[in-house]
Amino acid sequence: MDHAGRLSRLRSALGENNLDSLLVTHLPNIRYLCGFTGSAAVLIAGDRVSILFTDGRYRTQAKDEVNAARIVIARKSPLIAAAEWLATNKERSSSTAVGIEPEAITIGMRVRLASVLKGRARLRSAPPLVERARMVKDAAEILRIRRAVELGASLFRIACKKIRPGLTEVEVAAAMEYEARRGGAEGMSFPTILASGARSAIVHGRASGARIPRRGFVVCDFGVILAGYCSDRTRTVHVGRPSQEARGLYEAVLEAQGAAIAAVRPGVTAAEVDDAARRVLRKRKLAGYFTHSTGHGLGLEIHEAPRLAKGQTQKLEPGMVITIEPGAYIPGKWGVRIEDVVVVTASGREVLTPTDKELVII
Amino acid sequence: MDHAGRLSRLRSALGENNLDSLLVTHLPNIRYLCGFTGSAAVLIAGDRVSILFTDGRYRTQAKDEVNAARIVIARKSPLIAAAEWLATNKERSSSTAVGIEPEAITIGMRVRLASVLKGRARLRSAPPLVERARMVKDAAEILRIRRAVELGASLFRIACKKIRPGLTEVEVAAAMEYEARRGGAEGMSFPTILASGARSAIVHGRASGARIPRRGFVVCDFGVILAGYCSDRTRTVHVGRPSQEARGLYEAVLEAQGAAIAAVRPGVTAAEVDDAARRVLRKRKLAGYFTHSTGHGLGLEIHEAPRLAKGQTQKLEPGMVITIEPGAYIPGKWGVRIEDVVVVTASGREVLTPTDKELVII
Repeated sequence: MDHAGRLSRLRSALGENNLDSLLVTHLPNIRYLCGFTGSAAVLIAGDRVSILFTDGRYRTQAKDEVNAARIVIARKSPLIAAAEWLATNKERSSSTAVGIEPEAITIGMRVRLASVLKGRARLRSAPPLVERARMVKDAAEILRIRRAVELGASLFRIACKKIRPGLTEVEVAAAMEYEARRGGAEGMSFPTILASGARSAIVHGRASGARIPRRGFVVCDFGVILAGYCSDRTRTVHVGRPSQEARGLYEAVLEAQGAAIAAVRPGVTAAEVDDAARRVLRKRKLAGYFTHSTGHGLGLEIHEAPRLAKGQTQKLEPGMVITIEPGAYIPGKWGVRIEDVVVVTASGREVLTPTDKELVII
Repeated sequence: MDHAGRLSRLRSALGENNLDSLLVTHLPNIRYLCGFTGSAAVLIAGDRVSILFTDGRYRTQAKDEVNAARIVIARKSPLIAAAEWLATNKERSSSTAVGIEPEAITIGMRVRLASVLKGRARLRSAPPLVERARMVKDAAEILRIRRAVELGASLFRIACKKIRPGLTEVEVAAAMEYEARRGGAEGMSFPTILASGARSAIVHGRASGARIPRRGFVVCDFGVILAGYCSDRTRTVHVGRPSQEARGLYEAVLEAQGAAIAAVRPGVTAAEVDDAARRVLRKRKLAGYFTHSTGHGLGLEIHEAPRLAKGQTQKLEPGMVITIEPGAYIPGKWGVRIEDVVVVTASGREVLTPTDKELVII
């Protein structure tokens, strides 16, 4: 990963925002900028020097992982160590400010910072500079997401094999998660959703002890983390013979998903892609049952910018990686969601998720 | 769970702190107070009324789960909805303040709150009132932790069966996690640590693709979440015949662990328990290799108060549930850690973790 390039581009962005450094506290941002994957760290990304502060537990790991930044092992907390460095650092110019990440610093952390700094460094809430950079993935990142998506695909084959009436949802999820681990995943990118029968109408129906009924939809929404990068995929299968109405619902969601995928290309806004899906469902009188947004960016985190939703003016750019996942949920009855991972290319899009999307009947 | 009682006790604590309500944003605190387990929520716990704010995805779930509080489904974010309620609520007395949780509110959230409130409610950082209450578990909680610890024990049997030279660490972890899921766990309480050979010297050695060597220690540190409550357990086994030196290290850590467990009783400080373990290792000239604290509280979260470490003046009370987990790590060579879950009782302690701790040789 091109950590040096990322830090260098961040330095330019800092200059444009009249910041001489950024106190990075959001762990995925730290990983993105210097490669460190531990659970306790603060990174000062500065115009002259970048320093990762972590604690004694991560001495060896930091040495192995960190690129393009110095390492300081803090005796107290990494945050306090970073604050002490800022308070005493002579290299810093006094006219500019230290940026902080407002969504990744609590009020408590802010108070502890201030008690060390005692005014010797000016803190200012920074715009989401690292999140903006992370929106557009480089080739190495897209390759990792591709691998994660491929591993995710093999889990769906396990799901199709395991799903049977009478088995509990969680037994199916357990088999999928076992396959993920054996395939090298660090873990799942979110709690596996396996929602069968009437539970398929619950958008976030985590795999439960409920038994799969003899007839009905099963929404399978799952993802892995592989070498740090997330996959995310939803397929809805049907146990038993689907009614015409069930088929109709599935076809409507599939058409909406296809329309949203077809709308993906550089220059369109996130809202336009969302609307492409919503238009199809509106025509089928299902718009009121599509109760969430059409998709989201993914990468080091399962939910990243951009958000594909109403009012989102962010334009798509080549290298962005997003999910397209419309759904329709009839409370108490059933629901369908279909989701792929899509990368924006210079000429349009590439769907990373393999396999066709005909309704699988079990 | 006695949610009404918890909310009522919180109300008394609010009064003592001159707060008329608490804006609860830490999700485990919300679960503790009213039972809601969703991923997006804010709870106003007030002197007259308690209200849970969540979003449309959780309409059904909130109705099923929430006790002793009203439910509001927010059209925008739960935080904004809570702020709007605070800004317009006539029941609130104007002389007192709304408490916020400084460790669970980011600067960004604080700004969004202020932009809605426009001074119509006075916010004040509150002491960790809910965390303090959560330190002492009631009988229903201890029962859940006991069940989680028992499920955790069955995973160690799987580990002992699976650990063989040549197998990767992650294959062992995968089998353990599969067993956890099949046993009803919602997930693991933290990424499974399986650190073999020289990796056993890494305190946080997550299961990796490394192959288990023919001879050496394997540190297994793992826990499940069952019905919301965490377990946590470490056993260190030895593959192949252990040297006298290896046995000596194991015996020293085991003795330190026993000393710390024996020190647990109402009225002693967390620091005294920590020191009991450290004293044994000091005698064996191993104190410098024990690089972390002796333990931590656990419950709805894997790490809760109290911390068992130097300088911690918190006194133990009946109902506290803590881990006792000293270790010794010789960098580049090997490491040993042994951990049990212990509940403080009126007369002393009960070790919840079953099975003996003789060195298992594989």
